[in-house]
Formats: sequence, structure tokens, C-alpha cells
Amino acid sequence: MAKLRFGLVGGGYGAFIGQVHRMAAELDGLAELVCGAFSSDPERSQSAGAQLYKLPKARSYPSFEAMFAGEQQLPALQRMDFVIIATPNHMHYPIARAALDSGFHVMCDKPVTFSLSEALALQQQIQNSGLTFGLTHNYTGYAMVREARQLVRSGVIGEIRRVNCEYLQGWLAQAEHDNKQAQWRTDPNRAGVAGCFGDIGSHAENLLSFVTGLQIEELCADLTTFVDGRELDDDGNVLLRMQGGAKGTISASQIALGKENDLRLQVFGTKASLEWQQSDANSLIVRYSDKPMAVHRSGWAGTSAVSVAATRLPAGHPEGYLEAFAQLYKDFCLTLLGDESAEVFPTIDDGVRGMRFIEQVVASSKAGGQWVSFVAPKKGG
Amino acid sequence: MAKLRFGLVGGGYGAFIGQVHRMAAELDGLAELVCGAFSSDPERSQSAGAQLYKLPKARSYPSFEAMFAGEQQLPALQRMDFVIIATPNHMHYPIARAALDSGFHVMCDKPVTFSLSEALALQQQIQNSGLTFGLTHNYTGYAMVREARQLVRSGVIGEIRRVNCEYLQGWLAQAEHDNKQAQWRTDPNRAGVAGCFGDIGSHAENLLSFVTGLQIEELCADLTTFVDGRELDDDGNVLLRMQGGAKGTISASQIALGKENDLRLQVFGTKASLEWQQSDANSLIVRYSDKPMAVHRSGWAGTSAVSVAATRLPAGHPEGYLEAFAQLYKDFCLTLLGDESAEVFPTIDDGVRGMRFIEQVVASSKAGGQWVSFVAPKKGG
Amino acid sequence: MAKLRFGLVGGGYGAFIGQVHRMAAELDGLAELVCGAFSSDPERSQSAGAQLYKLPKARSYPSFEAMFAGEQQLPALQRMDFVIIATPNHMHYPIARAALDSGFHVMCDKPVTFSLSEALALQQQIQNSGLTFGLTHNYTGYAMVREARQLVRSGVIGEIRRVNCEYLQGWLAQAEHDNKQAQWRTDPNRAGVAGCFGDIGSHAENLLSFVTGLQIEELCADLTTFVDGRELDDDGNVLLRMQGGAKGTISASQIALGKENDLRLQVFGTKASLEWQQSDANSLIVRYSDKPMAVHRSGWAGTSAVSVAATRLPAGHPEGYLEAFAQLYKDFCLTLLGDESAEVFPTIDDGVRGMRFIEQVVASSKAGGQWVSFVAPKKGG
Amino acid sequence: MAKLRFGLVGGGYGAFIGQVHRMAAELDGLAELVCGAFSSDPERSQSAGAQLYKLPKARSYPSFEAMFAGEQQLPALQRMDFVIIATPNHMHYPIARAALDSGFHVMCDKPVTFSLSEALALQQQIQNSGLTFGLTHNYTGYAMVREARQLVRSGVIGEIRRVNCEYLQGWLAQAEHDNKQAQWRTDPNRAGVAGCFGDIGSHAENLLSFVTGLQIEELCADLTTFVDGRELDDDGNVLLRMQGGAKGTISASQIALGKENDLRLQVFGTKASLEWQQSDANSLIVRYSDKPMAVHRSGWAGTSAVSVAATRLPAGHPEGYLEAFAQLYKDFCLTLLGDESAEVFPTIDDGVRGMRFIEQVVASSKAGGQWVSFVAPKKGG
Repeated sequence: MAKLRFGLVGGGYGAFIGQVHRMAAELDGLAELVCGAFSSDPERSQSAGAQLYKLPKARSYPSFEAMFAGEQQLPALQRMDFVIIATPNHMHYPIARAALDSGFHVMCDKPVTFSLSEALALQQQIQNSGLTFGLTHNYTGYAMVREARQLVRSGVIGEIRRVNCEYLQGWLAQAEHDNKQAQWRTDPNRAGVAGCFGDIGSHAENLLSFVTGLQIEELCADLTTFVDGRELDDDGNVLLRMQGGAKGTISASQIALGKENDLRLQVFGTKASLEWQQSDANSLIVRYSDKPMAVHRSGWAGTSAVSVAATRLPAGHPEGYLEAFAQLYKDFCLTLLGDESAEVFPTIDDGVRGMRFIEQVVASSKAGGQWVSFVAPKKGG
Repeated sequence: MAKLRFGLVGGGYGAFIGQVHRMAAELDGLAELVCGAFSSDPERSQSAGAQLYKLPKARSYPSFEAMFAGEQQLPALQRMDFVIIATPNHMHYPIARAALDSGFHVMCDKPVTFSLSEALALQQQIQNSGLTFGLTHNYTGYAMVREARQLVRSGVIGEIRRVNCEYLQGWLAQAEHDNKQAQWRTDPNRAGVAGCFGDIGSHAENLLSFVTGLQIEELCADLTTFVDGRELDDDGNVLLRMQGGAKGTISASQIALGKENDLRLQVFGTKASLEWQQSDANSLIVRYSDKPMAVHRSGWAGTSAVSVAATRLPAGHPEGYLEAFAQLYKDFCLTLLGDESAEVFPTIDDGVRGMRFIEQVVASSKAGGQWVSFVAPKKGG
Repeated sequence: MAKLRFGLVGGGYGAFIGQVHRMAAELDGLAELVCGAFSSDPERSQSAGAQLYKLPKARSYPSFEAMFAGEQQLPALQRMDFVIIATPNHMHYPIARAALDSGFHVMCDKPVTFSLSEALALQQQIQNSGLTFGLTHNYTGYAMVREARQLVRSGVIGEIRRVNCEYLQGWLAQAEHDNKQAQWRTDPNRAGVAGCFGDIGSHAENLLSFVTGLQIEELCADLTTFVDGRELDDDGNVLLRMQGGAKGTISASQIALGKENDLRLQVFGTKASLEWQQSDANSLIVRYSDKPMAVHRSGWAGTSAVSVAATRLPAGHPEGYLEAFAQLYKDFCLTLLGDESAEVFPTIDDGVRGMRFIEQVVASSKAGGQWVSFVAPKKGG
Repeated sequence: MAKLRFGLVGGGYGAFIGQVHRMAAELDGLAELVCGAFSSDPERSQSAGAQLYKLPKARSYPSFEAMFAGEQQLPALQRMDFVIIATPNHMHYPIARAALDSGFHVMCDKPVTFSLSEALALQQQIQNSGLTFGLTHNYTGYAMVREARQLVRSGVIGEIRRVNCEYLQGWLAQAEHDNKQAQWRTDPNRAGVAGCFGDIGSHAENLLSFVTGLQIEELCADLTTFVDGRELDDDGNVLLRMQGGAKGTISASQIALGKENDLRLQVFGTKASLEWQQSDANSLIVRYSDKPMAVHRSGWAGTSAVSVAATRLPAGHPEGYLEAFAQLYKDFCLTLLGDESAEVFPTIDDGVRGMRFIEQVVASSKAGGQWVSFVAPKKGG
């Protein structure tokens, strides 16, 4: 059985996330990069294909449109099976739409689209297409995040009362005029209505939702732009009221100077509580009121089968960001291959909910920090 | 030079905080317990004095009124110098008022009074009395908390943009019918308008204020009572807008099951950021954007004179909760003794501000989570 | 019931350990300092008594001999009950001998004497005296150290196979000519045959023995003096063969630059393993092969009654070095008061075994790192 | 430019390290697996090639001999460039010898051979071959391990006085009769003269040597076999005397029940000290006597160019075991590609020194724990 083949849109020079997708998608030996459109400049696309990805000239396409057209004409055993979208946000929807129109499965970076309306349109198209669509909310790929979700589902935690998720970075604490990554993330024409909350607040929402299974009912947000001249939020705090009565907070910042990429989730239930942080990603702290706290460790005895399935190495051989990212690709590929044991990966439903979160957070904050209701759409989402 | 002498009101059987005050006040050899009124039941007061504190019968008084009267009649070299108030909140003001009226200095547990109006009245009385009044917001006594404050003051942090303080406990996650400590803290007639936020949310506000020196301008609070039948909040989250533009959050909970007594402060500035948590109380993490993070350690090289003055032992000999608590007593006693090198300890101004915080948090939450302004009083506070 | 009364020998100006003993002995309200001989210089002794300890002139004695004589003449209700010896090592034995001769109980700093032969003589005298003798191997007072011992005793660990204890400090990494504490510890006339191993290696041996209950059978030591001009070891590593077949190591250093006072114990059994370190003193890590690791925390649910008895505060209120030290005094005082619930504190038997350890480590090292047998004495020890 | 092509010997069913090598070698997009000999059973080899590695039938060879012969006959643009040896130890030398004879570069798992004499022979052959030989002492690939080495080299640490390396696992705490990985590691016919010290003690020696650059001059070892019926050591402790006067220890165990894969290195110098542990692999603690300790973090400001070159992701995106492993392959491949910027990877010289370490440790221990000198060979080593 051969590997699945994929193409990459985006990920050219200076775009670290392109190599992340490539490494993650290939890690488990299920898929290989066969083509790409790495830049809107045809010369740079071809050059990046050769230099960064060691691809032949013929399959470093000048545009995503050319890639989809070109790949459609190849024999089935050479043609790419799915496309990875790793561009700035505003391009996600046009590329995804075209990919689906051309019959390719899609793995898309987050947030899923530029706006909620695009996400809803995309959701509709996916449902009609019969194709598979995944969203790289990569933190859901960590074994101990899956362990946390499993402990919630299995009832170990009891009823959830309180959830806190903070995602703090400091890399945008100063204006960074010549950082390509910073530029598009702070540009409302490419990022969308939110800066920090589009980029990482959306991860926090997704992680919280993935682990707890709870829906946000109402939220109250206070976003700030600290760096002069920046147009989008670079920091914010959100109060949450969840369906069923739990309360919580989401905090996200890109001006938390000195913080690297610190994502931390706490879930407090009536029977036990959970704490996970990415800086110690292979541990999950489980606290009880009636016995010593336990530290569940990736791959160690006493962890759930679900989490063990998301490890590649024996306990004590740390798995990091790339391995977690790769886990989504593994589950995505196994799904494409018809393997029913694959865990669920984030999909367009997460994408729609995430876009609604982003838009409601911005709406609440623009209204001066008023409570807004987080109404679920009639179907899906 | 002899030790200062103090009396204790409260701290009888089942009240762990009484011994804490006694141990803290005596630790540095500056003061000794000489009398007390340990219970409103005269028999139990006398018995506690003998059993718990090894006091002679004559100085285990049946009531605080009797104590103040009795001590006033003793010769100056035997009479107590100050009184410690370690009762439930509703008794703080009557006892403090009587103590001041009787000419005794006061060290009072927090929150300072039952209500803001009492705090303001007490503030007035203290100003007129010429006596010294301290408030045991004990976390300000940790050397590394003082180091944090000093780093803010010295400009190392730059301008503060973001502050987060969380104080999470789990001991009230279930209804605890026979726990004396739990009972009064959840009783609006003894605790005041707030439960969790009166008990520990007030510590979080004080710590944040102590370290940053920033005033809260507006806040938006969402308090919850999770345990059936409880009358006061046992959990809450507050958004903060600070004077000068910083943003922040305070979270406090007593239903965060499995959490011991987890107080954590993060302060993010334009030049550096700080993180301190009580579970690792002898460390202060200082993060920079342009060099490796530093861990300032109690008593180690490179820490400020202010923090060194708040350590008793060489670095690596952990000092804990009692030592931090004792630091306030040390500074209080040194002040009484006329030693000008004493650091400032929390005073009635902290108490007034804290009561305003409690009342505004409750007001915001009762209004459905609306923003309320945190107006400073005309004088003091 | 009144407090026990104690006197202090040593602990004058510049001797931080004197105040440690005073604070520790008084912390739990069972005893109070009533007299002392703080210096061999009568003037300085009296001045220290007044300034450092707020003692009246009459009870700041010019010498330990004068103190024992003076106290013997006081009425029983004023006379000291026990003496604390906190001098350099070479004075421990003469003072202890005189104290016992005068009918006073003794609490002595470690190592117990200058030499093994002195320790054996002291052991004999104590047995004949009917008096109580304690040794401040203070790390055995930590609640989580007692928890560790209890887990070994209860069989949770199974049979012990491997033990490692390291005690690393850096404060003697450079020659410190004007540090009084450093001077006597590196002086063979005051410290004994070992420097680092007398001062802190002996703590490591005691901790290992306290927790595991195992006897050393043979050892092989390699000691080093790194700092030029120093006469005693400032660093060393020891291989251990224990009775019953366990193996292990003890490492100690005072030239481990940058280390504060880092004491760490690991015990590996056939059923579970333990790890404790002083820098996180309120936690004990328990590892299993068949379930997640557990973190036992001082005062938290699921810990043994023995360890709970060694805590004063609810979980999450860190207790540190002083509280652990105080625990030995608490148990010592309770024993003097006839309370049979007191835990065992280190005694002359620990002292004799510790001196034998020191002398055998030095002997092994002097022989070029040869194995020496660690023969137990015929009785006791 | 196309990728390098490699073949894999070993790594069939049940051999987790095979996939580790494959993932690590392919991670950075410089090389791809094109063939393998996965089992000495031709059927199983072919089946593993298809199932585990998705290789075509023609390039899943029945034996390493067949692979070398078959690949030699392929056109240069298809033929493998290098071979990875991931078999039990006793096969390393025959395979490596044949590979070199056939003109292939070699990346070999550790320990390099079954015996020192084989290693010396291999060293000779490599020198004569003009081919490149790498050894996967993978822990040297961590960015923070390279940072540590760089801090030593740059003089930040000063003169080294003390080094401690411990490598503790618990997975062989019980006899594991049906674990293929355990079986060959405890079999003297396949593992060599040492069990635990061949498998992981050799990693500890390599890490210590890599970071410090110091040579062992003399050692004294005490190895133990705790599990009944096992023929090789499963635990041991070694005292070290280094050239230049530093002292140290190496501890390794596979019966340290509950330990995952805990590798920890401490290096103490006259100016600063270092601590690194694999369980927190992206941090390097640097301690000073005159300022707060610093925590160097992978990819963060203030770390050396050497360590930055060994990271793929921005700080805060944890890199783990696979990424460190991949770093050796990256440097190996860059070397093959003529890129002079590649860092040095472990070579046959490390292998020879490692085999000498293993044999001397065993010799010392067999002699009852006597000091043996660790004489360097006349050339190389």
C-alpha cells in the first residue's frame, strides 16, 4: 500500500508553518508531499518547491488554481489526494472552495476562514461534496489533551463547574515591521476581524471545547490593542457562561512579554479536576479531594487507550508540538484510508463554531464589554 | 529591651488561624502573647488560654471588652501593647473600635470589616487615634512578592500592560456542614456580602495592588454559587481595567476541587514580566524578550535589599506561609518600636480599598455582570 | 500548664543557626528561651542575650559552665529544662557532657561530636543518665520525609533496591576568608576529620537511614578538596552497599556553585519508588509501574497520619525549613512532657552511626577510594 | 536537488526504534527511506517493508547482504546513499563492515559494536574507507544539550569541578519474558558484556563527554543484577576521576521502578553550573553565585547560535525526542551533502570511547569495585 499524496498551498520562504505541516503530515509514514503552490509569485513558488521541499519543477505550481488543474490531469496513482492550506486567513476560503470543487480533500489551517459567513458557506459545500475536511487545531493532537477529554467523557471529573484557558505569547509585544508572520496577522485585510483572538484565542476556544464538550452560552469580552498603530487586538480576556451552568474564562495575549507560547487549560469538576499546559505537554495533572493528585504521563500505565493511541514512543521520550500536529494528520489520513479506528480530528463544525466565537468576542468588546449570547446555528456548528 | 506584648481575640478551639497569628507574631522574637479572649464562652476562653496558649487563668479573659478593661489596669510593663483580631469578619469592627478606644494598637485579619461603611468609619477613627493599625494580607510578606513589587518600582518591568491574579481553593467544593471554618465564611451574617471574594478574592486584589501599585478603574464581575443551599458566592471571575490603561483579571474560587491554596500572580510590562505562585513561594520568575528568563530566589544573589530584608535564612532553606505572615508582624513591631527601616505593611487604606473591591464586585455581578466604576474615595483609601 | 524552658549555648553574633534553634524550639508554643551562653567572651554573651534574644542580664551567662551552675540554683519553676547546643562541632561533647552531669536534657546540633570515640562515650553517658538527648537532623522533621518513611514501613514500596541521596551547596565554591560560618566548618580543629561530609554528608546519611531503615554495609568514598588552601573535603561521592542487597550513592558538595541547599532523596523499591527534594519540600513523588505517579502533598488527603501530625497548616500553606526543624523540637518537648504520641526524633544512636559514617568515608577516601566495611557496634548505634 | 536515499537494517515488527530512525532521518526533508532488510526472515522482512514502511516488494530485501548487493546494482539516482543499522548490538559490526565494503555511508545505533575490539577494527576500516560513519547518541541532538556544550566551550562555566549524570529507567524492574526489546538487551550473546550500562550507561558517558569535553581518567564501578535469572547488570553506579581533576558520577538503572527514561546532567564549574534533564528538554538551567539563575530555553533570545541551529520551531513549541534524534540525521545528511555548517555528530571515536567505558566499568565491577584506569588508545578514540 502506497502513501497518500498531498499538495501544499502556502508555506514558501519565511513561512515556518509550511514546513510544520509538511513534517507533521509525513511523520507517521502515511503521506508524502508531491506538489505545492508556495507563493503567488510563480518564480518564488518554483524556487521554494526545489529548495525547501525538494520537489521537481513540474509540480511546483505557480498558483493554487494551476495546481488543482494540473493535478486533476495526472494519473490517479500520481495525483495528489489532499491539499493542505497554510496561507494567511483571507485565502483559506477561496482555496478550500476550489479544492473541493476539484475533488480534493482538504486540511486547512485555522481559523477556518476570514469570516463566519464564509465558514457557513464552506460548511454547506463540504456537506454536499462528500469530501473530507480537517482543521489543524493542533493542540488537540497531544496525547494528554486527549486523555483530558477522555477523563471528562468517562465521568471521572464529574459535572464541570469551572474552566479556564489561557494562551499567552509575547512575540508581538513590540511593533515588528519586518516580520512577515507578524504583518499579516495584524492586518485586518488578511487576518479578519480579530488579531490575537483570531490567531490564538481561537485555539483556546477549540481546546476548551474539545476537552469539555461544553458549549458557550454567553460571553463578555474585553479586547485591547496595546501596540501603537496596530489595527487589531493583541490582548484580551473573556468571561464565559457555559450551557449547563459552568463558568469560565479565556485569556489570550500576544503582548505578554517573555511568554513563549504558553497554553494552559484547567477544568474543575465535582469529582476531580484537570490541568494541562503545553510547556509540560506530556503530563496531565488530575486532582482529587480525597486522595493524592495523580500525574498522567504520555504512554505510561493507567492512561486511556485513546491517549496511548496518540503516542509513538515509550513514556519518557518526550513528544512535542510536531508530534501533536502530526496526530491530526495521522487521524485524517487513516480516515481517508477507511480506517475506522481513527480518532475524530477538528472539522468544519469546529471551524464554524470558532468563527462565531471570534466574531462574538469582537462584538462584545466593541460594545464596551457587554454580554452577548453565543447562539448555535440551526444545523451543524 | 523587652519584647512587645500582645493579646489575641479569637483563635479558640478549631480556629487554626489563631495559632497562625500567635506563631507569626512571636517568630522573630519581637513580641509575645500575654493575654487573650478566645471565645465568647468564658469557660472555653479560659480553657483555650491554658491548653492552646499556656496562658495563666488571669489573662484568659471572658470577652474582648473584659480584656481591654483588664489590660488597661495593669502596670505598663505588663500590659499588652497591641491586640490581634482573628475572629469572623462581622466582629472585626466592634473589636477594633474598642481596642483603639482603649489605646491599643491593632493587627486585624482581613477583610478589614463587614462592610465598606464600617471600614470608612474605622479609617476615620484610626486617623484620629494616633495608633497603629495593620491588616494581615499575609501574602505581601513573602520575600519574592516584595521582590516583585521592587522590580515594578525600579522600572525593570517598564509600563504594566496586563495583570492576572488567580486564587483557587477547592475546600468548599462540597457543602461542609460541620466545618466551623466553612460555616462562618458562607454565612452572610458573619462574612459580609461576599463569600469567596471576601475571603480570598480580597487577597488577590491586595496582592495585585501591592505589587503593581495600579488602581482599578472599572471592573466587570461574574460570581457564582455552585453548592446548593449556600448563600454567598463560592467562585467568580472579574475583568479589570486599570488606571493608565492596563487590563487584567482576578479569578477566585473555593470550589476548584483539588486545588489547595493556589495563589498566582502574573504581571506583564513593556520591558519584562513577572510570575509568582505561592506553591513555589521562594521563586520569582522574571521574563524578558531579549535574554533568558531569570529566576530570582529568596536570599540569593541579585535580589533586592527589600526582599533580602524579608528573609531569615540563607537561600535554599525554604520559608513558607508562616514566615511570610511573620514578616508583617515583624514590620508592624519594628514600626511600634520606632525602627524606621521597617517596610510598609498593609493598613486601613488597603482595608478600605479591599472593602470597596468586594462591594463593587458583588454589585457588578448582581447587575448581571455589568461594568462598574471603582471610584476612589475623596481622601485616603 | 507552663511552657518548657530552655537555654542556648552558641548562637551569638553572626551565627544564624542560633536563631533557627530559638525559632524552631518556640514555634509550637511548647517551650521558651530563658537563658543562654552565647559567646566565650562574657561581654559579647551578655550583649547578644539582650540584643538578639531580649534576655535579662542575669541569664546571659559568660560560659556554659556558668549557665549550668547558675540554672541549677534557680527554683524549679524558673530553671531551664533543657539546653540546646549550637556551637562548632568540637564543643558539642564537652558541653553535652556537662549538661548531662548537671541534670539537663540536651538537644544538640549535628554532627553529634568531634569524633566517633566521643560519640560512643556520650552514648554511654546518656544511657546511664536517664535524661533525654536529641540531635537536630532537621530534615527528618518534614512532613513529606515522614510520609516517605511511612510508605517504606507500610510496605507500599516493597523491597528497596536502590537509594540515592544528594546534598549539594555552592556557598564554599570560593575561599571565604571572612565568613565565620565557613571558617570553622573548614577548620579540622573545630569541624573534625571531615568538612563537607561532616556538615552535610552526615545529613544525607541520616535522611537516607531515617527513610529507608537500611544499614550501610560497605562504602567506597572519593572526597576532594577543590579550593586551594582548604584543609578538609569540600566535595565527595560515595558508593553504598546496604544490608539486604540494596545499592546506592551519597553525594555531597559545598562547591557545587549556584546550588543553594539542594537535598534530594530517591528510593527505588520493587513495588513503588519515592522522590523528595527540599526545594519542593511539601511534595513527595510516588511512582508506580502500573498506574500514574502520585504526588503526596503535606496535609492533603491520602497521606499518612504520621505525616499529617507533622503539619501545622492546611495543605497549600507551605511549611519550610523552620517548621521542619520545629517538628523535632515539638517531638522532643512532647517526649519530655510524657506525651507518648510523639514521633521519634534523632537520638544519640543516629549520632553514633553518623560519626561512624563520617570516619569511614574519610578512611575509604584516604585509602584511595577503597571499600571499607561499615561495622555496627555491638550494642546500640 | 533530490533527497538522500537510505536503507534500514532492523526495525521490523515489534522494534520501535526502527520507526524512530525512519521518522528522525526523514523529518527535515533531507532524506527518504528507499529500502530495507527488516528481518532475518525474508517473508517477515518483505511484509514489514510493505506494512510498516510502505516500500515496494523489490526493495524489502531478505537480508542485509542482499540489500547491499541489490542496491549496488541500481542506477546511481535510485541507489541508497546510506544505511541505518538498528539491530541488536551483536549485529552492528558485521553489518557496518559489509556496508562500508559495499561503499555505503553508515548511521549506526549505539553502542557501536559488541566489543571494544570490534570497535577498534571498525574505526580502522572507516579511516581507510573515506566514508562517513555516524552514531546515534541521540541526546546530543537536543538544542539545550548543545547549548550546554557551547557554554562550556565559551568559558562561561569556568573550570569544571564536578559532573553528575544519571540515567534511570524502570521498565526492566521485573523479568519480562515476552518483551522482545527486553530479551536481547539482557542477553549477553546479543547485547555484549553489559546490560544496563551498554544500553543507557553508554548514553550517559557520551552525554557527559559531549557537553564537558573532559576525558575520564579513572573509574570505580559497582554494577548489580537485581532481577533473578538475568545475566547482565540492570543497575549500577560509577565514580569518576576526570583528566584535569574534576570528579563525578554516572548512575544508570533499568530497575528504577516508576522512572520513565530520566536522563539528567549536572556540570559544576568555577564560574557557573549547568543542569539539564530530558523530561524538561527545552530548558537548560544555568546557575551563578552572583546573580539569579537563568533558564535558557530552546529558540529563545540569549541562546547560542549553535543551539538555535538545532531548533526547527519558535520557542514555546516543544521539540522532543524525535526532533533531537532528527538533528543528528540532519547534521549527518548535511555533511554528506558537503554543507560545512553542519555540527559534529557522534562518530566512531565516540563509539570506541564508549566501548572502552563499557568494558572498563564491567572490569572494575567484576574486580569488586576497584579503580581502573581509563587509558586512551594511542590514536583516535
